[in-house]
Amino acid sequence: MSGQAQATPENVWPPPRPAGERNYPMNCWWVAALADEVTQDLLGRWLCDTPVLLYRREDGTAIAIEDRCPHRSAPLSLGCRKGDNVECGYHGFTFSPDGSCVRVPSMKTPPPALRVRAFPVIESYPFIWVYLGDPARIDDVPAPHVLDWATDPAFAEVHGRIDIAANYLLLKENVLDLTHFGFVHAKSFQITDWVEAPRLTGEGDICGYHQAFSASPLPPPFAVPMGLPVGTPYDRSNYGSFVSPALQIAAVDLIEPGSKQITGRFRVSHATTPIDQTHMHYFWVGGRDFATSDQEMDEFKALTELGFAEDEVMIEAVQRVQSRDPRPTHLLEKSVKADGPGVQARRIVARWMERETS
Amino acid sequence: MSGQAQATPENVWPPPRPAGERNYPMNCWWVAALADEVTQDLLGRWLCDTPVLLYRREDGTAIAIEDRCPHRSAPLSLGCRKGDNVECGYHGFTFSPDGSCVRVPSMKTPPPALRVRAFPVIESYPFIWVYLGDPARIDDVPAPHVLDWATDPAFAEVHGRIDIAANYLLLKENVLDLTHFGFVHAKSFQITDWVEAPRLTGEGDICGYHQAFSASPLPPPFAVPMGLPVGTPYDRSNYGSFVSPALQIAAVDLIEPGSKQITGRFRVSHATTPIDQTHMHYFWVGGRDFATSDQEMDEFKALTELGFAEDEVMIEAVQRVQSRDPRPTHLLEKSVKADGPGVQARRIVARWMERETS
Amino acid sequence: MSGQAQATPENVWPPPRPAGERNYPMNCWWVAALADEVTQDLLGRWLCDTPVLLYRREDGTAIAIEDRCPHRSAPLSLGCRKGDNVECGYHGFTFSPDGSCVRVPSMKTPPPALRVRAFPVIESYPFIWVYLGDPARIDDVPAPHVLDWATDPAFAEVHGRIDIAANYLLLKENVLDLTHFGFVHAKSFQITDWVEAPRLTGEGDICGYHQAFSASPLPPPFAVPMGLPVGTPYDRSNYGSFVSPALQIAAVDLIEPGSKQITGRFRVSHATTPIDQTHMHYFWVGGRDFATSDQEMDEFKALTELGFAEDEVMIEAVQRVQSRDPRPTHLLEKSVKADGPGVQARRIVARWMERETS
Ligand code: FES
Ligand code: FES
Ligand code: FES
Repeated sequence: MSGQAQATPENVWPPPRPAGERNYPMNCWWVAALADEVTQDLLGRWLCDTPVLLYRREDGTAIAIEDRCPHRSAPLSLGCRKGDNVECGYHGFTFSPDGSCVRVPSMKTPPPALRVRAFPVIESYPFIWVYLGDPARIDDVPAPHVLDWATDPAFAEVHGRIDIAANYLLLKENVLDLTHFGFVHAKSFQITDWVEAPRLTGEGDICGYHQAFSASPLPPPFAVPMGLPVGTPYDRSNYGSFVSPALQIAAVDLIEPGSKQITGRFRVSHATTPIDQTHMHYFWVGGRDFATSDQEMDEFKALTELGFAEDEVMIEAVQRVQSRDPRPTHLLEKSVKADGPGVQARRIVARWMERETS
Repeated sequence: MSGQAQATPENVWPPPRPAGERNYPMNCWWVAALADEVTQDLLGRWLCDTPVLLYRREDGTAIAIEDRCPHRSAPLSLGCRKGDNVECGYHGFTFSPDGSCVRVPSMKTPPPALRVRAFPVIESYPFIWVYLGDPARIDDVPAPHVLDWATDPAFAEVHGRIDIAANYLLLKENVLDLTHFGFVHAKSFQITDWVEAPRLTGEGDICGYHQAFSASPLPPPFAVPMGLPVGTPYDRSNYGSFVSPALQIAAVDLIEPGSKQITGRFRVSHATTPIDQTHMHYFWVGGRDFATSDQEMDEFKALTELGFAEDEVMIEAVQRVQSRDPRPTHLLEKSVKADGPGVQARRIVARWMERETS
Repeated sequence: MSGQAQATPENVWPPPRPAGERNYPMNCWWVAALADEVTQDLLGRWLCDTPVLLYRREDGTAIAIEDRCPHRSAPLSLGCRKGDNVECGYHGFTFSPDGSCVRVPSMKTPPPALRVRAFPVIESYPFIWVYLGDPARIDDVPAPHVLDWATDPAFAEVHGRIDIAANYLLLKENVLDLTHFGFVHAKSFQITDWVEAPRLTGEGDICGYHQAFSASPLPPPFAVPMGLPVGTPYDRSNYGSFVSPALQIAAVDLIEPGSKQITGRFRVSHATTPIDQTHMHYFWVGGRDFATSDQEMDEFKALTELGFAEDEVMIEAVQRVQSRDPRPTHLLEKSVKADGPGVQARRIVARWMERETS
């Protein structure tokens, strides 16, 4: 984790937009990138309306600092890395990973006030997490959730990033209401039995669902890699959780109906990070402890990308309607029982936001 | 005509934008589409800042309902038609032509509050008219004007749609001031004698112009299809009316100077429907009772499209100037006598708007 | 210089936007175009949020009038020139170079209130200057600076125009802080010794810098055309001035170290004209009194275009950061000594703005 920037009134806090103009909390760990996206090259990215520069030190440590030069606002990502430091491409001011300015070409010693924010970073495979919020409150927020299975040798894992022109919560609600499978993914995933409103689970700031299927016909995405005929009666335990505004985890345990043994474990996690109010980075990770050969995992990845592209089309269409219709969305939308987890997630996000201003 | 939606405070009225932010009345019949555009496929279209879904029942009746699912805002036009109903492509909620929800896959019975607006529709060749306004006031507004000649077997008729990035009133004013013919259409229509300010006609909420030409040289678009040499002295009676904010009708009667008999009747109507404040659908219909063979009408249609594309270029240029110039347009524009009908039309629109809020 | 428009409250003054929404003064001579861009064809251009039509009379005099017809807002640049007048392409109203309307096709005599603004114009090679401000204050503002060297037969001269999606002051600051050469232009101009903060010069509303190099190695852009080996020790006197918000002039005198004779004079001027708050026209002129053959000047022009395109990339990146970051730029930027001339220029612009409202 890199050091925190020294607080100065202008460039550390308050956040870029007042809470009333955003629905994402700043005091939260967000996924900044997939670990393999961050290299010794400079990567500039807007996260939560904040310009962020990501790169790695020579020892491999991931760094996140503000991607806006405090001199004349050039993006530092247009500059170049010099050892562990970054040189601005405009007038050559150079910043270290802790945000301090270590060189102004026309001066002997850079003024101490010349610094960028350095953001705390935690790398936890396959994600690079960043904390962009109030430095004084970092200890009050939950640490990034660790995806144990992603580094468990019994599992094989694939991941990807999709940039979606929609508010991040639209994807949250998508993955918390699985009744969309029979419609959005009817042709790709062919899982058509997620039709009942599942049982709502969780408490406090975690919420989720649990759904048990008994001797239910196995759909192709489970049957085929298990080596069973499509439609074989099988038990399934299907559950997921809203872990934080940044991360949604989901699981399917496949259970042999006779022995009640778990014979296959399937996992998927959805990290969504606001770029701004109407755009997000969507980082997804999927894995399983069966059919883990490279070729089978390539097929798994291809199918996942196909299905998630279907979500992208739908979610962007929803955002366009909401952005274009002059009537406020909250007056128009009606919920049903299957929305329980999604509605609960909205309430949890509202509490995260409230804590930020109290 | 489909049934009216049951009034609920959120989704029926008030209109999408307050009257101060628009210059089009909601309580008005507007053309939603050309009849041949509406089929059993789903057609989504924004009309008056309102998302509208158009399709036909199995019996051919045209339907217009809100193109925004009351569940999570998906456009219903991304879903699919199921018999006379429409199934949302996101979670499968299904709506009937009267706007009620007839199926929620995860529920036994859909909650009655789950409904979309169903808009009254009138089909009158070649237009599909829709009423998007206050259901309680529908009887106070004039019914759609019927274009008798369009279904008169003596006439042949062509029509088309042009989407223009400009406020709908800019086209209204265009067709009410024919002095633009000598400039915008100098090369296409070659009608250069519409230079005088015409006589203002009409009363109440109808306004228009009338202009008589005596033994005036026939320009090519009349002479050629009449089979007369270009420039033949001929009488012409030229008149048009602003029938409602949605429709402008125009006519030229060609009169043999000796007998004073009408030997040719030419008609054109211009329906303009706001998409939003700076975009419109322009539906045009033209016809005549001479030179009605398919080939002659193809030529008529091609010439009309050429000329109306000239209007489109000019009107979009005007909109760009008005949108870009920070000074308010109403302080800058000066009118002359030839603007009489257009100025009158603006006053009539203002009265339509006033009635909406009184 | 064309005559001034007769004042009417609506179309002459106040300016298009209040001073609080812009950082450019209206009461200032700005460069409207390069002289060779203005011909007998109609050229429409937005300058300082004002639509301006540029063309030449038959006698070659440059004309600038408002590019917005006072009738129905059509850009006059879509019309056509008729002798020294301009006919609107919509309804044919015709305007003379003094802004008065000389013809309305449907009227005997045009109403006197129908006029466009005519802007004072001064042609001074290679620029066409225009005054868009308060006609009553034109005598209070400095006349356009004349680039004597540009018409001096001892000099050869090249020029060009670049349209940049950034506020005009970003280029002002760029050319007032030469420490960017070692970074932005490291590969193109290869002038890497402009690293010290130069001496601040000027007084009142002029500010600038002066920097003397003694027996310093000549970089390629000076050495090569001088016919000297790259790196030859040579003296250089390097100076520049913010002449007005519209123009920046710069010079390098190359001095033989032994004789202290000026053996080469290099000049470059940067005129920047706001299109609006986030776009500018950048007109540049460069010249020298050595290596003046056509081929050498072609190489000079190509190198200049390469380098200025590097500035464009950087400046547009800065504007994107400033436009996208919700935090106000003035709270974020820190200055160092090398910013002296740029900071001074901002103060001078602020004084120009203040005078406009006092
Ligand atoms: S903008 Fe970064 S050094 Fe000047
Ligand atoms: S958004 Fe239409 S059914 Fe959910
Ligand atoms: S808009 Fe120029 S003459 Fe009508």
